[in-house]
Amino acid sequence: MPDPGWSLHPQLAADTMPVGDLALSRLLAINAADYPWLVLVPRRAAAVELADLGADAFPLTAEIALVSLALKELTHCDKLNIAAIGNVVPQLHVHIVARRRIDPLWPQPVFGVTPLPRTDAAKFERFVEKVRKSVGAAPL
Amino acid sequence: MPDPGWSLHPQLAADTMPVGDLALSRLLAINAADYPWLVLVPRRAAAVELADLGADAFPLTAEIALVSLALKELTHCDKLNIAAIGNVVPQLHVHIVARRRIDPLWPQPVFGVTPLPRTDAAKFERFVEKVRKSVGAAPL
Repeated sequence: MPDPGWSLHPQLAADTMPVGDLALSRLLAINAADYPWLVLVPRRAAAVELADLGADAFPLTAEIALVSLALKELTHCDKLNIAAIGNVVPQLHVHIVARRRIDPLWPQPVFGVTPLPRTDAAKFERFVEKVRKSVGAAPL
Repeated sequence: MPDPGWSLHPQLAADTMPVGDLALSRLLAINAADYPWLVLVPRRAAAVELADLGADAFPLTAEIALVSLALKELTHCDKLNIAAIGNVVPQLHVHIVARRRIDPLWPQPVFGVTPLPRTDAAKFERFVEKVRKSVGAAPL
């Protein structure tokens, strides 16, 4: 499914660490101490809305489910929060965030809340490595 | 695809007006003056996370795309915001909200922002009727 016209939006690149590539999407991680946070970006140039993907919305759905299950198993979270917002960065991207009833913002959504405290770099890298293995993402 | 064990969560029933039923999901509308706002609820008992749907995640995706395109055409919005959060109401439900660059909260997400001003009932009912026709939802 490669789309040679696609490249990761520079703002997403700046805000995240890459986990790896799935069949359709690049999987990224955001360093937020209390909110294990992954982002799927379908490697499709010019996709802004989910509906822009056409039939590629289905493999994206499968990847959301795969990443959801992996994140739930790794974090033992109480709830997953999934969102495609894109008001600031238009390139289609889907947030998948693990929430716990004891986290500081519960039950409020975390989308649009900035800045959030970060965890230390080594811990974040271990999290990214665990996610990569769990979902079988190809390292970049 | 009927699931006799499913019924709409009372909080969702209280907060919305029904648009109608699609093949998998019940489509609801929330009255928020500046944010045309629809909600899809798969009629599957016990579904909390998207991944709980299994293969039904795919028809849900098709319904999200259908509703997205209808909402975009009806509202001429600048961006759709789509989210499955469920920290307060656990029954799986997907928000699809039309956003405009001139709306009061842009570019912030609207999820979790309450209370939002309502539009008048007659205008809201006309919106619901337009959506119902556009997506071909079966009236309840």
